[in-house]
Amino acid sequence: MFLRDIISKLGGEAIGEVGRPLLGVGTVAGAADTQITFLANPKYRAALANTDAAAVIVGVNDRDVTSKPRIVANNPYAYFARAAQLFQASNVVAGGIHASAVIHAGAIIASSAWVAEFVSIGANASIGERVQIGAGSVIGENVSIGADSVIAARATIYAHCQIGHRAIVHSGVVIGADGFGFAADFSGSDGCWVKIPQTGRVIIGDDCEIGANTTIDRGAIDDTIIGNDVKLDNQVQVGHNCIIGDHTLISGCVGIAGSTTIGKRVMVGGAAGFTGHLSVCDGAIISAMTLVTKSITEPGMVTGVMPQMNHADWLKNIAHLRRLDKLAGAVNEIKKKGSAT
Amino acid sequence: MFLRDIISKLGGEAIGEVGRPLLGVGTVAGAADTQITFLANPKYRAALANTDAAAVIVGVNDRDVTSKPRIVANNPYAYFARAAQLFQASNVVAGGIHASAVIHAGAIIASSAWVAEFVSIGANASIGERVQIGAGSVIGENVSIGADSVIAARATIYAHCQIGHRAIVHSGVVIGADGFGFAADFSGSDGCWVKIPQTGRVIIGDDCEIGANTTIDRGAIDDTIIGNDVKLDNQVQVGHNCIIGDHTLISGCVGIAGSTTIGKRVMVGGAAGFTGHLSVCDGAIISAMTLVTKSITEPGMVTGVMPQMNHADWLKNIAHLRRLDKLAGAVNEIKKKGSAT
Amino acid sequence: MFLRDIISKLGGEAIGEVGRPLLGVGTVAGAADTQITFLANPKYRAALANTDAAAVIVGVNDRDVTSKPRIVANNPYAYFARAAQLFQASNVVAGGIHASAVIHAGAIIASSAWVAEFVSIGANASIGERVQIGAGSVIGENVSIGADSVIAARATIYAHCQIGHRAIVHSGVVIGADGFGFAADFSGSDGCWVKIPQTGRVIIGDDCEIGANTTIDRGAIDDTIIGNDVKLDNQVQVGHNCIIGDHTLISGCVGIAGSTTIGKRVMVGGAAGFTGHLSVCDGAIISAMTLVTKSITEPGMVTGVMPQMNHADWLKNIAHLRRLDKLAGAVNEIKKKGSAT
Repeated sequence: MFLRDIISKLGGEAIGEVGRPLLGVGTVAGAADTQITFLANPKYRAALANTDAAAVIVGVNDRDVTSKPRIVANNPYAYFARAAQLFQASNVVAGGIHASAVIHAGAIIASSAWVAEFVSIGANASIGERVQIGAGSVIGENVSIGADSVIAARATIYAHCQIGHRAIVHSGVVIGADGFGFAADFSGSDGCWVKIPQTGRVIIGDDCEIGANTTIDRGAIDDTIIGNDVKLDNQVQVGHNCIIGDHTLISGCVGIAGSTTIGKRVMVGGAAGFTGHLSVCDGAIISAMTLVTKSITEPGMVTGVMPQMNHADWLKNIAHLRRLDKLAGAVNEIKKKGSAT
Repeated sequence: MFLRDIISKLGGEAIGEVGRPLLGVGTVAGAADTQITFLANPKYRAALANTDAAAVIVGVNDRDVTSKPRIVANNPYAYFARAAQLFQASNVVAGGIHASAVIHAGAIIASSAWVAEFVSIGANASIGERVQIGAGSVIGENVSIGADSVIAARATIYAHCQIGHRAIVHSGVVIGADGFGFAADFSGSDGCWVKIPQTGRVIIGDDCEIGANTTIDRGAIDDTIIGNDVKLDNQVQVGHNCIIGDHTLISGCVGIAGSTTIGKRVMVGGAAGFTGHLSVCDGAIISAMTLVTKSITEPGMVTGVMPQMNHADWLKNIAHLRRLDKLAGAVNEIKKKGSAT
Repeated sequence: MFLRDIISKLGGEAIGEVGRPLLGVGTVAGAADTQITFLANPKYRAALANTDAAAVIVGVNDRDVTSKPRIVANNPYAYFARAAQLFQASNVVAGGIHASAVIHAGAIIASSAWVAEFVSIGANASIGERVQIGAGSVIGENVSIGADSVIAARATIYAHCQIGHRAIVHSGVVIGADGFGFAADFSGSDGCWVKIPQTGRVIIGDDCEIGANTTIDRGAIDDTIIGNDVKLDNQVQVGHNCIIGDHTLISGCVGIAGSTTIGKRVMVGGAAGFTGHLSVCDGAIISAMTLVTKSITEPGMVTGVMPQMNHADWLKNIAHLRRLDKLAGAVNEIKKKGSAT
């Protein structure tokens, strides 16, 4: 692939040309002389002088930052991502169903879809064109999976759930398990929790990616809904009846309790949490390990995390934190006395 | 199903009767005119005027809150849960073992049990009456699973573990993996961690539910023990040798380090943690994302979480939090001076 | 096994001898009279008087703490761990490949390796001597697994990843799923996230243990690297391009964002987090549920966690925490006035 081949597919302007075909992409520091790299962050400008890369993707303000063959693009990072996809594009899988797969009655599988070994496809499920389903995945009854989606090995999709087009669902994902719903029925020391049947579904839009071992519970009665172009990292937990808006990004280990509504283009840092039955507006940014207990109504960053300290300092400080109310009272006392004199 | 059919099974008093059979349950806002809804929370009383539901389950204090056909029950939420189960009850599975399942020597499987495709049942395992085991699950050697339990697709139960009656184990669950136990054997820069063989079991009582991708480690020498009617949400981690009392509820993403003892009817909020080798008394309530580092000896709610703030406020406040010890010292200084004058 | 058999394998000094063969190990409180126990923590010295154990492993300072048959060792806890391994050692598995396993073209499986039912081994994968691969595991194309490693049931290793010798990989583990990398390509309300292909690998050294449902993402371009003798507990998430040094111990539910570099012999408490693109020096200790947002450059313990309080106290204290900046300002005001008078 030459620069001219890339711009013919992705646009942008080529300045110069590589002497031999590019074989892939690389970082500024790590690229080989057969690779193309990119400059998106100004702080790597100096490092660019030492790159072995054969060519560079640069922004319009950086068009002359190097004399190497280069592509000028409005958004060099997004351009780089798409260029990297081009180098991967040869990985086309032929359709077919492995002999060991179990296809239950009424399931419809597109002829271009690929179903690997030890896959179970439930009754009346619908598997779209060019879908890939990896070894050991279990697709429930009446599930539908849109065209061009990739389900990795060992994922589970419970009955009646829907996944849109071009989804990527990683290994270990569980979509549609029962939400956590019980009615207390105790009197004195007797009684038990009564399970509330979880009869809603999970509905996932187009262009979503669901990270490894992430879980999304089905709705209790209504559905759990994930919009379009939503990206969930690994080990995220989404409770029943959550609604997550388009283009929202949720980092690893986040837990979202039931009936939380998260807007569009929200960004959630790793291991953050949501206590449920609250809403988060479009464009909010939640810092890592922050627990959201109240609805967020304005875009901007919300944070609630104890800062790291060396342990001895922490011990000293939290001793006072445990009696901050008294400290504040003492200050008030002093202020009152001060005003009185 | 008419109201008279429901009360004949669940008790309660019917006032009026629906004109045609009910087909299911629904929320006050979402129920169709073929469904029954419920009123458990007084704040939905007003909304009840607009429900499309054909009938309502109400508490004794709300018997006249609507003129619709209704059932009066002592605990309308628990009644609703049981009514919802009635509508599901037709989902009976015939016993049988899929031809692809691998059953190792000596395993005993009740004839009413159902074993799906790609299931492995270990040697000498014991699978009770009407147990269902979903596709791709792996049941280890000598495991026993009590009657009427449901193991979803793709769960793992390691050798020698025991599960009681009427359990629900969701997809991705791992019961009985090794606990995290190593003895340090280092001198200077040499050495290694020595694995402590984990030879205990996991013993789970009756009526438990284990959420998707939850993990419960086997004991190091003694067993890890989960009581009766314990409900674990998704992605919970229970370390080796924990003991969890009856009717305790543990929300998603909670991590419990080894040798923690949790009492009965404890409620643990999402993403809370326990540092291990401590005990929590019956009836305690742990707030979401709280780290329990000391034993809890009295019922009531325990909390330790940084509140959410807008990021700019947080930055200002934590700057002082990092030197709270000095701030408290300054206040003490002032108080001393004040007393001296 | 007599004491003389143990010391012939593990060294140490035997004092006295058991009257009949030992059958296993036990705790001081729980050991049967056919078992050997150990004393590593001085606080159990008194309890030793009541143990039923037939023999005890003690440290050099405790050689006379009991009159029972005993082994004196420099590190009684590590000695105990190794002794416990001796009692397990008979669990040798014969090599072989289950008839249901699917072995893709070019895969090389050592004749002493054991491959269970419903396992998929990808094209050109390399499985070393005496490796065990449990039921339902999926090993990707070109993966290599070193000799004597144990992959439990239902683990996934994506294509091109490498695992060293003597690894233990528990059920539900996912190694090599895509890292979380997207380039924003939005203008106004239009646009989408562009996936950055994740083309690096995961490279895991020798003697590592990976806990149940833990996930380790493949690198974006360069590799994610786990050193030797690294122990990860359950439900740990390791982001793309992390580097973890030898002998580091990471407890359950820890989340490590991408490009974090963690040194050697680091100990990370449960549910701690790392925000990514930072480094942690050798020998650091991170407390449970602490979020590391800045690099750690000196060994020692780092903590940042809100202490547990009863909920009423917490409410009072955090009210002031939310305006700590103002409280500090008030104190400063008072100090200024004090200096002025």
